[in-house]
Amino acid sequence: MYRLFEMGDSGNCYKVRLLLNQLDIAYERIPTNILVGESRTDEFLELNPNGRVPLLILPDGRPLAESNAILLMLAEGSGFIQTDAYERAVMTQWLFFEQYSHEPFIATNRFWIHIAGEAEEYADRIALNEPRGYQALSVMETHLSEVDFFAGATYSLADIALYAYTHVADEGGFSLDGFPSVRAWLERVRAQPRHIPMTA
Amino acid sequence: MYRLFEMGDSGNCYKVRLLLNQLDIAYERIPTNILVGESRTDEFLELNPNGRVPLLILPDGRPLAESNAILLMLAEGSGFIQTDAYERAVMTQWLFFEQYSHEPFIATNRFWIHIAGEAEEYADRIALNEPRGYQALSVMETHLSEVDFFAGATYSLADIALYAYTHVADEGGFSLDGFPSVRAWLERVRAQPRHIPMTA
Repeated sequence: MYRLFEMGDSGNCYKVRLLLNQLDIAYERIPTNILVGESRTDEFLELNPNGRVPLLILPDGRPLAESNAILLMLAEGSGFIQTDAYERAVMTQWLFFEQYSHEPFIATNRFWIHIAGEAEEYADRIALNEPRGYQALSVMETHLSEVDFFAGATYSLADIALYAYTHVADEGGFSLDGFPSVRAWLERVRAQPRHIPMTA
Repeated sequence: MYRLFEMGDSGNCYKVRLLLNQLDIAYERIPTNILVGESRTDEFLELNPNGRVPLLILPDGRPLAESNAILLMLAEGSGFIQTDAYERAVMTQWLFFEQYSHEPFIATNRFWIHIAGEAEEYADRIALNEPRGYQALSVMETHLSEVDFFAGATYSLADIALYAYTHVADEGGFSLDGFPSVRAWLERVRAQPRHIPMTA
């Protein structure tokens, strides 16, 4: 059975749990509290030298890190990855967009404000991140004003990855008021078969 | 023919040029100076709303952004992507590591210091990035003390992606003195057939 080192309110971990549920793959959750250093123990660093969750342990014991790499491996051959080469490339483009242009600003501010409760200590960096988070939301809004899902006609890994922190952007101080296409897309994602909320 | 919007001293653009050369694919370079806003013109934003290079234009005119997504599309079916499912997943794990844990610190400091010449203006943020860049180099050193290449026995996209900014880390103020396995790996990458330097 797969085992997943994860933290319940981490969007990166939620991505993997959402996909596992939508693929109907059984797995064991291993709660890992990064706030008290549980991803930096010697035992954990042996499995992932980068000290981060999620970390997936395959049934044969081999580890895999990086949420979006885990999604790509688990979904290979399923309907969550496009078969057309260009559409697949566009899907991976949005996975990298998510990790480079979205997560470092929206998820990081949410972490400081909502998870760690350090809004005051990190006020300067939260302020620096804010325009870059809104820039990511604007890029999403522009794209979603023309398409239903990020990489073609159907729901795919790109939607799972971007949903994870967008649907809780308010917890990072980001308002979706000016982003009607993003809000409508969030509803389409929630309406997918076997969707589960982050708190499940 | 492929066309590539790119900037000569960008590591993200160099990755794509290096792979195109190693795959022996002809393409046209379209020099794009981000320092004077050439990736933020209306015409460019029409092709890539995220306003970044590299941007690859396919022979049929369709655009693709995100350096590592471009690598994955171009290399599909070639020896630069592992055929084993787990090894391929490990390769993509390192691609996401590069964009999340390496590039934002090492490439960004290099940009401020070496490209934009704004080391003084950004001194505080350069100092914040420094330990995180060294943390990425430490993770690489640990891994490369046991393997020759990042994802298995042979050179792959993971090596191309991580080489791009690691081999010029000194331009971002990072010393590789304490990272002998990383330095030896840089030499192995340089020794690959059809390798070209960033300045080519």
